[in-house]
Order: sequence, then C-alpha cells, then structure tokens
Amino acid sequence: MPSEVQEKGRLAKATSYILNIKTTAEKNQALTKIAEQLLVDQAAIISANDKDLTIGKEQGMSTAVLDRIMLNKERIEAMAQAVQQLIALPDPIGHLLERIEKENGLIIEKRAVPLGVIAMIYEARPNVTVDAATLALKTGNAVILRGSSSAKHSNIALVTSIQRALEKTAIPIEAVQLIEDTSRETAKELFHLKEYLDVLIPRGGKALIDLVVKEATVPVLETGAGNCHIYIDETADYSQTEKICVNAKTQRPSVCNAIENLLIHPIWFQQYGTQLLQTLQQANVTIIGDEKVCQTWTAAQPANEEDYATEYLDLKICVKIVENLYEAIEHINRYGTHHSEAIMTEDSLAATTFLKSVDAAAVYHNASTRFTDGFEFGYGAEIGISTQKLHARGPMGLPALTSTKYMIYGDGQIRE
Amino acid sequence: MPSEVQEKGRLAKATSYILNIKTTAEKNQALTKIAEQLLVDQAAIISANDKDLTIGKEQGMSTAVLDRIMLNKERIEAMAQAVQQLIALPDPIGHLLERIEKENGLIIEKRAVPLGVIAMIYEARPNVTVDAATLALKTGNAVILRGSSSAKHSNIALVTSIQRALEKTAIPIEAVQLIEDTSRETAKELFHLKEYLDVLIPRGGKALIDLVVKEATVPVLETGAGNCHIYIDETADYSQTEKICVNAKTQRPSVCNAIENLLIHPIWFQQYGTQLLQTLQQANVTIIGDEKVCQTWTAAQPANEEDYATEYLDLKICVKIVENLYEAIEHINRYGTHHSEAIMTEDSLAATTFLKSVDAAAVYHNASTRFTDGFEFGYGAEIGISTQKLHARGPMGLPALTSTKYMIYGDGQIRE
Repeated sequence: MPSEVQEKGRLAKATSYILNIKTTAEKNQALTKIAEQLLVDQAAIISANDKDLTIGKEQGMSTAVLDRIMLNKERIEAMAQAVQQLIALPDPIGHLLERIEKENGLIIEKRAVPLGVIAMIYEARPNVTVDAATLALKTGNAVILRGSSSAKHSNIALVTSIQRALEKTAIPIEAVQLIEDTSRETAKELFHLKEYLDVLIPRGGKALIDLVVKEATVPVLETGAGNCHIYIDETADYSQTEKICVNAKTQRPSVCNAIENLLIHPIWFQQYGTQLLQTLQQANVTIIGDEKVCQTWTAAQPANEEDYATEYLDLKICVKIVENLYEAIEHINRYGTHHSEAIMTEDSLAATTFLKSVDAAAVYHNASTRFTDGFEFGYGAEIGISTQKLHARGPMGLPALTSTKYMIYGDGQIRE
Repeated sequence: MPSEVQEKGRLAKATSYILNIKTTAEKNQALTKIAEQLLVDQAAIISANDKDLTIGKEQGMSTAVLDRIMLNKERIEAMAQAVQQLIALPDPIGHLLERIEKENGLIIEKRAVPLGVIAMIYEARPNVTVDAATLALKTGNAVILRGSSSAKHSNIALVTSIQRALEKTAIPIEAVQLIEDTSRETAKELFHLKEYLDVLIPRGGKALIDLVVKEATVPVLETGAGNCHIYIDETADYSQTEKICVNAKTQRPSVCNAIENLLIHPIWFQQYGTQLLQTLQQANVTIIGDEKVCQTWTAAQPANEEDYATEYLDLKICVKIVENLYEAIEHINRYGTHHSEAIMTEDSLAATTFLKSVDAAAVYHNASTRFTDGFEFGYGAEIGISTQKLHARGPMGLPALTSTKYMIYGDGQIRE
C-alpha cells in the first residue's frame, strides 16, 4: 500500500496537469472562496488551535513558540486579507518571456508556466499553511504541505477549510493537501519524492534548512538564514553609519535581514568606534568583540570563531576590526550565508568592489540590510528569501513559483 | 590532507571571487589566447589522444566510442573555431534585469552575475572539455572538469593547453581545473561538494544523469535524455505529418530531440496508418507496435511497457494507437522525459490543449522536434538541454550559467 506521502504525491501530480489549464479568473475565484471560508470556519479553526496550544503548554513550550502557533480572530482575519491581496496581483502564468521568429516561419514562444507540484516543509506558524496554499494556487501549482506536529490540529482545520472552499470552485480539492503524519519519516520521504515533486521549499530555522539541503535529492528552493554584515570602510560617514547600524541591528532583531556582525576599518574605528559602540549599547545591544575591540571597549565579550558564523537573531552583535576592504570581503564570503551584506563608505570605487565581490543575494551601499524583503521590493507577495544561486536569488515573488516552456508553432517545418 | 577534489574545489571557489570582477575584454582576451594555444599545442594533444585510443582499442571499445574520443587536426581546429565564435557572443554578466526606484530614494538593481563554481561530469568526447571550460570562462565562472577515464590523456593535454594560454592573461589558471583521478570516488565527492560547488552539470548518457540526479545533494542542472513523442491527431494533414515524422526520427536518430514514439488517433490510423508505416520502413526504421498496430502492420514487433519508456537513439520507433488527445497527453506525461513533444493537427483547440497540458521543455504544433537546440533557437552557444523545471528549461544559452544579484544604492536609508 502506498504511504500517505506517496499517495498524496500521486494525486498532486495528477492535479497539477489540471491546474495547468485553469484561467486566472478561475484561480482568483478559488482564492476569493478561500478568504471567505476561513472567516466562516473561524470558530472551528480557533478551537483546533486551542488543542495545539494546550498540548504545547503541557509539553512546556516557551511563550514565544506558543505565540507563533496561536490563532485568534485578528490573525485569521489577517490571513483572509492576505489572500484578498493576492487576488489583486498579476498572474505570472502565460507571460510571454521571449519570442523568436525563424526564417523558415517557425514561431518560438517562451512562456511562464506553473512548476507543477510544490512541497513545503515548515515549522510552527500555521499562517504559513494558508500562505503557501494560496501562493501555489495563484501560480497554478499543486501543493503538498508538511507542517510541524506543534500546529497539527490548526493545520488540519485550515486545510479542511481551504478544501471546503475549493469544493465550490473549478479547482480540484487535491490542489492543496496536508501531510497529517508529522513524523520525521514523512519529511524524509518528501526529500526523495522525485517522481512527483518539482520543488521542495523548507521554511523555518537553520537546522531544518540545513537538513533539507543536506539530504534532499529533489530540487530545493533554499530560503533564509541570514548571517549578515555591515562593513564600515575608512571613509564612512558617521551619522549615516550610526543610523543604519542601529536600524539593521535593532529594528527587528529576530529576522533574517537583520545584521549580526560589524566589520570595521581600523582608522574609522579609532576615530568613531567608541561612539558607535556606546550608541549600540544604549540600544540594549550586547557587544561581542575581537581582541582589538575588547582592548578599546572593555565591556565587550570576547568573540570566538563560532561567533563569526552565528545568526544571533537577538540584540547581540559581533564586532571585528579588519585591515581593509579586502579582508572584509574575504571574511563575509567565508562566514556569511549569502543573504544581505552592506558597505558604508564615501569611496565609490570601494563600494563597487564590495558590491561586485561579495557573494550574496542582496548587497547594499550606504543603506540598511533590512530592506531585503519581497514587499519592500514591491513584489506584493513573498515566498521567502532565496540564498541559493539557481532559479531565484533574494526575495522571491510569484515568478519564483513558475517555470518556463517553449511553445513552437509551425506549418510543416523540418530540420534540414 | 585534502583530496584532489577538495583541494581543487577550494581553489576554484577562491578563483571565482576573482573572476567576478573580470571585464568582458579580459575574458575575451583569454578566450582568444585559448583558441590560439590549442592550435599551437596540436601535436601534443593529438599524441595524448593517441594514447587514449590505443588503450581504448586494447580494452575492446567499439568503433563508435573510439570515434567519439578521437581528435585530429580538423577537430582541434573546429574546437578553436567554436571558441572564436564564443568571443563574438554578448557577455550576459552585468546585464540589468530589473530596476526599482523607491520613494525614499533607494535604487534597487537586479543584475546577472556568475554562478561561481561549476562542475561538469561528462563522458568520452574530449571536445566537451574545451566547450565547458570556455563557456564557463565567458560567463565568469570557475570550472572543475571531471571527464571519463577513456579520454584522460586527451583531457589532461587540453587543460594543460588552456592553462598555458591563461598564464598569459588576467585570468588565473585555476579558473579551469581538471580532476585527473577518474575513479568513481571523485565523481561521488563532487556530488556532495556543497562547500565549494554552485552547480553540477552532468553531460552524457541516461545512466550518468540518473545517477547524478539520484545522489547529488549539490544543485544540479539536469540535461538531456529525450524520450520524445509525436501525437498524430484525427485531423492531422498527411503530407506534413509524413515529412515531420521521417525528419524527427531519421535525420539524426542518435540525438535527444529525435522522436522515439508515435501516438496515433484511431481514425487517422485507419486512413493513413499503413502508408506512414510503409514510408518509415522504407527509411530503414524498425517498427515496434502495440496490439492494434501489430494487427494492421504484421511486420511490427510487439511493444511492451519498457518500450514506452525507452530512448532508442536508433532507427527504431514505437507506435501506439491512443483513443484521443487526452490519452495521448496522459501517456506522454507518464512515459516522456519532459524534453520535446509534438502534436500534428489542423484543430487549433486540440493544439492549444496539447501545448498547455504536455509537461515538457519544448512543445510543438506541426513542426519537427529536431529544432530543440540552442543554435537553432539563435542562442549562439548551448550548455545542454535542460529537462528540469528550476532555473533553466530547454536549450540553455550563456544566461543559464548566470545567477542574479540585487545591488542596492542608498544614501543613509533605514527601514521605518
């Protein structure tokens, strides 16, 4: 007998061929019904969520984790609203990307098409369930959701609601399926489900993403981890630098585009270092410093090799003095996670060298790394932030969930 | 001590950061030197190739395989010429793909950048060595080549010549490296060389590609296998269909965009089946048929399940009667390799349904599948034909060897 993953994979694949030919109007109508149904099913969703919260409390989960799982009227309304916003976005499917007319009359069109079947493995937050389901639907993809056990009842209630909505539309309910078995085995099965999956997207902490990237043999869209740096060059403007460092570190320390490290040119540090560290300390930031920093700023905790590679996601920053621009670039390419990296400098040649040589999805000159975000970039939706180099890099909007197809029109052409 | 693969991986990664900032002129100058040096080193290359041929003969290799390995004056000149043609192609690196100007003055540019380090695993043909090295160089990537043992001496001579050329240029010689140890272990090491590889491209037969796709945890660009079909619909024009079937099957049966299967509507088959099969037979094509075909065309060999999934790469075709368009689509999506698929029909609705529903890189209406080719599409170079859906699908030109990077220019912007 096929496993749950196998069976749902097979159904998703078959459904993907039906979704292929659905119109934008049909997909948007389904999204409208989903937004409505989520509100209709509010009581059932909240009651299922209560079960998850009760179990979570029994298991001694932290308040922070419980808050991530928690759903209430406002959060469900916010989900429904996000679905409404998705309806307004342009449908990338069918978009003409290239057109070649050959001398023999052959017309070659390259168009955006759905990827097919997307699987998403994610942790805690049940809003990802609705988010992933509706982004996939908008782009004509079938989706297989594999949430965590801590949100199991919530996820079942949400997917039940979505499928109830789809029943009233032209979209088959198998377009959105949840793997209810949240054991490790089902995740591992998804890692290798070559026959049915076109892409696997992990959303969650570093441990999850590392595991997927290490083990999966299906194509993966790697999202996330951000061990980001600001390099302060010799000629950096102090007030811009201070403002940007504070913003990039403290505006929302728990997100991937917040910075974790400062690399500072020695001459700049000599002049402004104490002032900057004082400002950061006043903003409740704990300073971890290399040897030189600790000599000047005795309150700093000494940094070790591990600090350079750590995404604190907290009000904590690792500060290191680098000899020059080149050492900064080398350090970032060695310890960074290829997410968002910034240089503060008034020297445009240094800026160009940094922007070209640093290996990251987004590189900044004199601006906060916090802008790396699909909504900030104006994409209207975000699948996640890709830190890989194939297919999509940086904030991914709807086009990241598409592939391409060459459609070729002839009237009897053969190759000579 | 690091292995050969580890050590060359490390060097390639370090070199990729240098290649990042090389200009088009510097890269083209290196290509010019390579084209020249290959001609200068002709005698050495041919003598190394002789060693491979001698060993191959001793091991009882077929004439076909020996011919694939063989290099002579003409073939080396052809290689040098291909490098010259590459120089003339536009450099995709730096190309502006998107520009966003935000109200706060932030300028976000999305530009094409090199992937970084490309590894290529391939079989026999030593011309792939030069091809891969120069395509990678043109796009600013460092490349690690892992050819087969049967062309070992030839590959060493070719890479030596390429490195000798690079010595005279701004490009470090480590931009092009060959893994000399051709044991299975070095291939397996490349499958998992996450730390240094940005992409692994297998070029060769189905067995090699299947192995890479199944085992590799590094990102893969899957090229190649083509189990292609032509579906002949009820309303297909006979003379167009005959011409296209003969072309797609016989013009060059050993390549991936040649067809292996005919799916025929029963009404069309009743009227034209015998005539078409006769024509194919006269073109020396062996007919494998399903039950219905065998009843009409008694010379046909009976087809089994395996035939439907086989890429013959030979003057052999599997013919099956399908009930209608939908059975044809289902059969292709089940047994095809998502490469090139064609429909012959005068019914434009049927054509649209086929083109949308068939899951392949290139889908044709009334034209030969043999056009799926980077040169035919006007790309001027071809990395291979991707049958995967992420990153690149179909014939891959130079842009397939690029990634993107957001470069963001500010003057003190922070996120509110």
